Amino acid sequence: MAVATVVESKEWYLAAYAPENVPNSDHLKLRTVNVSLQHDSIPDQHVVLQVLLISVDPYLRSMITGRVGDLYMPPHPLNKVMTEFGMGRVIRSKSSDFSESDIVIYPFCPVAEYCVIPSNFLRKIDSTADIALPNYMSALGVPGFTAWVAIEVIGDPKPGSNVFISAAAGGVGMFAGQFAKLKGCRVVGSTGSDEKVQLLKDEFGFDEAFNYRKETDFNAALTKYFPNGIDLYLDNVGGEMLEAVLNHVNKGARIPISGMMSQYNTIPSERKGVKNLLNLVGKEVKMEGFLCGSFLDRFGEFLQQMETYLKEDKIKSKHEINQGIESFLDSFVSLFSSSNHGKVIVQVAT
Amino acid sequence: MAVATVVESKEWYLAAYAPENVPNSDHLKLRTVNVSLQHDSIPDQHVVLQVLLISVDPYLRSMITGRVGDLYMPPHPLNKVMTEFGMGRVIRSKSSDFSESDIVIYPFCPVAEYCVIPSNFLRKIDSTADIALPNYMSALGVPGFTAWVAIEVIGDPKPGSNVFISAAAGGVGMFAGQFAKLKGCRVVGSTGSDEKVQLLKDEFGFDEAFNYRKETDFNAALTKYFPNGIDLYLDNVGGEMLEAVLNHVNKGARIPISGMMSQYNTIPSERKGVKNLLNLVGKEVKMEGFLCGSFLDRFGEFLQQMETYLKEDKIKSKHEINQGIESFLDSFVSLFSSSNHGKVIVQVAT
Repeated sequence: MAVATVVESKEWYLAAYAPENVPNSDHLKLRTVNVSLQHDSIPDQHVVLQVLLISVDPYLRSMITGRVGDLYMPPHPLNKVMTEFGMGRVIRSKSSDFSESDIVIYPFCPVAEYCVIPSNFLRKIDSTADIALPNYMSALGVPGFTAWVAIEVIGDPKPGSNVFISAAAGGVGMFAGQFAKLKGCRVVGSTGSDEKVQLLKDEFGFDEAFNYRKETDFNAALTKYFPNGIDLYLDNVGGEMLEAVLNHVNKGARIPISGMMSQYNTIPSERKGVKNLLNLVGKEVKMEGFLCGSFLDRFGEFLQQMETYLKEDKIKSKHEINQGIESFLDSFVSLFSSSNHGKVIVQVAT
Repeated sequence: MAVATVVESKEWYLAAYAPENVPNSDHLKLRTVNVSLQHDSIPDQHVVLQVLLISVDPYLRSMITGRVGDLYMPPHPLNKVMTEFGMGRVIRSKSSDFSESDIVIYPFCPVAEYCVIPSNFLRKIDSTADIALPNYMSALGVPGFTAWVAIEVIGDPKPGSNVFISAAAGGVGMFAGQFAKLKGCRVVGSTGSDEKVQLLKDEFGFDEAFNYRKETDFNAALTKYFPNGIDLYLDNVGGEMLEAVLNHVNKGARIPISGMMSQYNTIPSERKGVKNLLNLVGKEVKMEGFLCGSFLDRFGEFLQQMETYLKEDKIKSKHEINQGIESFLDSFVSLFSSSNHGKVIVQVAT
């Protein structure tokens, strides 16, 4: 029986930096490369992966500005394949820890159909568990863990706390709101369409939600939805919404910041500044930026809690799964147009 | 022998709010009132105080804007005498805890020559201790405690940490820098005159200092003075300096904020916004506003430490003592012109 020794693999690479605006096909391009499956060509402690699922996350935007001054993620090198949190099937292995047909997750997965990667950062999935694979890209992946760190570790709200979540129907926001509800908080979210307002209230159990494209006077909106002020704000957007929130914070409020969607596509000098940081003093507010990678020592604790919640149906997840590696660019762009519902995932293969 | 039953007392009261710019004699006015010394006219658990020293602090500015939206301190009522941290001598007492000629400190002391006040917030000073009285307005008062909370409690720098302090020759800044030096940090301060740059280096042991009125490109200045980045920034000014600092922060940097001198005299809508808060995320920075009043449970610990430092001459203090109650307005205005050296105090009587 003839066994293929080379496989063609389509992959997305960075052709040019995008200092501002939403990236397009001038910046991210698709190309086809050959991946060798021959035993001799695979380095020791490496495996060949057929990529199944790719998580599409906003933080990628900060890696392709071409600036280092943004201080978020380091710039991605030009001409190199993009990487993302992903999942794949081992099809060749030169590691004793992994066998062919193992399903693994990999935090630095090439946005490609196939890849040869070192085995040390792979984590095997128990594919017999009653958890659908896309959950590993959302509830049990970057967005779920980010939401958990924001609410459970940094925010630590009390029952009855008033919690506000921006970009609430996105990957991080939907889980953050549900964590806060499970802690007995009153939770309000902002999102970019009426349909998603309904989603937040009907599916994810938010007490209130509003469409920031319609209720454009954020101060008025927050006066309406937070008559008793805000105790915890999970900031996913920055800019004007953050400024409005700072007019409504209660004493000792906490503001974990996981990212700033409104800031990614603008060069720093043209961003709208936040003018009322003085409010941090009088209300004794703690504002804290974080990267979930710095909390990996608690990832096990998170997984255990999240798996239990999923099995008991206490946390719901919504995925927007786009088919084929070709859909990656559109999937990424959808994050900035507010057209996505829940966690955006690219299904490369099954 | 005839004993006076009434004494004339000059006092500063708020005649009009000052929404912007530096307040002047339209806003703060002096008047003379009569204070009765008659036993029958003094309520129980009250004393009559002859005021000796008044601490002049920037936070007062936020109480006379006439806005509640600033969320700093509550607005001071019109026509009421101003209050400040102060010290006085008990000249009449209807409290068993205090006797005539006791020297006491009082956090809400009227800016007046004499006053009748409740005894419950008074603290008696051991006037036989070898500590000059003005120290109770500075090292052992609001500025010293604010600096201690910022450095010891919130900032918690390690030996070798790179510490930046703005408004460094002011009441809070001079103590904060010395606390950081005692912890083995490298300390740089910014201040508003060349003379104060020398003061910081020669008197208070700062490693470096710069004049922000001359080195007006704050980014360039911080590149020069912080080749290894900033681990801790005690923000006393906000605005442009805070924005520049956020371009130089190291991973996990902390930014305690005790006030924002650059923001007090401007209405919120005209303030320059801080545009690069996204840097909080990538560098995982904690920014925390605080009021020292919320840390009063640790005031005893602070006092013990500070008194030891003062006796061992490990902490130096500089006071600008202006004579007479009449000097209060000019003393307050001097805080905003950068003409003061160290802690500004009004000596009302001896």
